[in-house]
Amino acid sequence: MVSVFDREHFQGKCLEFTSECCSIHDCGLDNIRSIRVESGAWVGFEHHDFQGQQFILERGEYPNWEAFSGSLSYHTERFMSFRPIYCSHHSSRMMIFERENFMGRSTELSDDYPSLQAMGWFKPEVGSMHVQCGAFVCYEYPGYRGQQYIMEDDKHSGDYQAWRNWGSHCQTPKIQSIRRIRH
Amino acid sequence: MVSVFDREHFQGKCLEFTSECCSIHDCGLDNIRSIRVESGAWVGFEHHDFQGQQFILERGEYPNWEAFSGSLSYHTERFMSFRPIYCSHHSSRMMIFERENFMGRSTELSDDYPSLQAMGWFKPEVGSMHVQCGAFVCYEYPGYRGQQYIMEDDKHSGDYQAWRNWGSHCQTPKIQSIRRIRH
Repeated sequence: MVSVFDREHFQGKCLEFTSECCSIHDCGLDNIRSIRVESGAWVGFEHHDFQGQQFILERGEYPNWEAFSGSLSYHTERFMSFRPIYCSHHSSRMMIFERENFMGRSTELSDDYPSLQAMGWFKPEVGSMHVQCGAFVCYEYPGYRGQQYIMEDDKHSGDYQAWRNWGSHCQTPKIQSIRRIRH
Repeated sequence: MVSVFDREHFQGKCLEFTSECCSIHDCGLDNIRSIRVESGAWVGFEHHDFQGQQFILERGEYPNWEAFSGSLSYHTERFMSFRPIYCSHHSSRMMIFERENFMGRSTELSDDYPSLQAMGWFKPEVGSMHVQCGAFVCYEYPGYRGQQYIMEDDKHSGDYQAWRNWGSHCQTPKIQSIRRIRH
């Protein structure tokens, strides 16, 4: 369950959700300025219909926009739709590839990696990815910072052929840290 | 080793370091605007002499201020000193306590926790901490976001009695995610 508020610090109009919301306008909210995640893992989106910049939301309190956004350069303060992340497996496993369409050098990931380069990946970019089971968050910079992309085994059969389909506003193949989503 | 640059995207004057720097001014730089960490884990500080806001820096590329800062609300774009983090142990272990001075309810941590509440901690604050071995990064918000505090077993004997000594500019006892620092 997630509680969303139209003012910072859990003030103002409050709505509770147990399933996805494709447009907060249709629920009578203009914007979301604070969030309390009571259970599960969720992903928030900048635009309606699960488009635009993504925000991973795990259990806890997000009193303002800064708390759920991971990126400064692309500062919109818009939060228009969200949905739960279903993690059907207890374990998470994915492959990352040097080039698009699952070509070039590759490696398997099944842990959390605050620095892909520290664990042996040879450059700050990833060409393509395949999620075999579970769900991951991929980040532009080391240490789980910058743009976030949620990758799930039940979306596109877990196939992410190129950086253009990591998210609808993705502008770079840079991926420098990756971690599992767990409940 | 870490390479620092006085312009974004690894441009401008470049200096390389293999050990701590307590003042970049003394090294002839006005500011640091991009960083490439070649090896090890480092911590950067907003002010000279390892004071102020902290930034964990692991292997990889940080092309601009956004990439190494974790917090929007406290936007200074100053980066004046840094030092390596020594992780003498292969494993990391710490205790968190409900109240100051190691009082109240407690729990032991030895893994990465994107949400402390999801793993059973009962509120968004921590009263005090003791690092038994290794080093951790603690974050204000879930998902490794917001203000960062580096906690090490070889600083203050691993004792962090209250939120005022988590960092020289710490203003809140909020800690909602914690992870180990590994090389």
